Amino acid sequence: MKYSIRNILNSRSKANGNFFMEITKILGHKPKNTSIYKKAFTHRSMNIKDSEGNAINYERLEFLGDAMLSAVIASHLYLEVPSGDEGYLTKMRSKVVSREHLNELGKELNLLSLVESKIPSGQFGENIHGNLFEALVGAIFLDRGYKHCEKFIYKRVIIPYVDIETLEGKVISYKSLLIEWCQKEKKTFDYNVYEDTGNDDVRHFSVKLSIDEKVVSKARATSKKKAEEKASKRAFFAFQNRISQFK
Amino acid sequence: MKYSIRNILNSRSKANGNFFMEITKILGHKPKNTSIYKKAFTHRSMNIKDSEGNAINYERLEFLGDAMLSAVIASHLYLEVPSGDEGYLTKMRSKVVSREHLNELGKELNLLSLVESKIPSGQFGENIHGNLFEALVGAIFLDRGYKHCEKFIYKRVIIPYVDIETLEGKVISYKSLLIEWCQKEKKTFDYNVYEDTGNDDVRHFSVKLSIDEKVVSKARATSKKKAEEKASKRAFFAFQNRISQFK
Repeated sequence: MKYSIRNILNSRSKANGNFFMEITKILGHKPKNTSIYKKAFTHRSMNIKDSEGNAINYERLEFLGDAMLSAVIASHLYLEVPSGDEGYLTKMRSKVVSREHLNELGKELNLLSLVESKIPSGQFGENIHGNLFEALVGAIFLDRGYKHCEKFIYKRVIIPYVDIETLEGKVISYKSLLIEWCQKEKKTFDYNVYEDTGNDDVRHFSVKLSIDEKVVSKARATSKKKAEEKASKRAFFAFQNRISQFK
Repeated sequence: MKYSIRNILNSRSKANGNFFMEITKILGHKPKNTSIYKKAFTHRSMNIKDSEGNAINYERLEFLGDAMLSAVIASHLYLEVPSGDEGYLTKMRSKVVSREHLNELGKELNLLSLVESKIPSGQFGENIHGNLFEALVGAIFLDRGYKHCEKFIYKRVIIPYVDIETLEGKVISYKSLLIEWCQKEKKTFDYNVYEDTGNDDVRHFSVKLSIDEKVVSKARATSKKKAEEKASKRAFFAFQNRISQFK
């Protein structure tokens, strides 16, 4: 007998409705099998098991998602950089799928807000963001297959973040790059920085970056400089969707 | 301008015809783009470059094939072993895609005979067999896409070799397992061992294993025991095609 996580969690039908909506928003379409995504957001602390005693949590999906990310990024880099040898391709891929980068991707999608856990979310370390991102990719693969999973990775990872020059470390500052670009394109820009410590113990700053008087990105960090750089990076990638393959 | 390896190697049209036939035999169907497979069997010693100066050899395809093997084996293990946690799945996969195992797969397909190289084939180390196998998988992915590549991996790796009990180290001797199976199924068996040193410096033995008076597998090794075990392993897997998913 197959387990149905929907049954297990039946008592929370309202929460499930919200979950369905949130997942639909992240994917850009309705999931075929919601229970796979439920699993991708179930922490081991919930201690849920299927009828055969197998643990239901996102850890196995992390393994699967990691493998799919590696494969999709490998094939992208292979085609994108015909001059790169095996060592180069391996190095570039490890930059794209670095723990730090995966954590950033998970944070941007605010995946932590969807987790079912008995541990208060404040007690998780940084890596939960990346782990959830990997599990989500694994769930998409199971729900829809490789082609679809590849599309998601293009949309969320490759198009916004995989820039060869950046990966090669040729871009030092996104702020200077963005300013240069604005000047060349005759666009006005404005970094609106303000203190925004919120509930944090440490001082934080937020920034709203406007180009031609329209807010194009926001960021928050522990220094003005870091917040500006982060906002610049986001804006930079938002303006350079040069890979049209999946549009 | 795109390079055409077919032009580069035009003078050897007869060799190309043979190559096409050999690849067709390995794949079980005609390749769509032969030049990709040509690349998968071109050693760096040939020193071939495309019109943009990029090296044409199999090393980049190894990277791609390795990623595809990892992804396909990951998804197979995920579905096959629902009780296995992340650590277990990682360990099992590394056994399947071990250097030793990939070398064995490359040898069985006799991939070395297809290589274009300026180095005499006797001078290559063991690992060339596995490297060529990875490059072949990478070429199949580029030529036909993920689904097709997955089918090839099922046919050549998963169905004949991925047995969970074996991977978990529960099978100690294939010979005893095979004998047990023959007795249970009321089949006769015969290990016909003979010395077969051939051109090797070291003494070698060959074995023909017959079941019900029909030769079912052959093997060659440096001891009688090793050769018998190898032939038993091959016979064992030939008789247990229990995964019908891709037939």
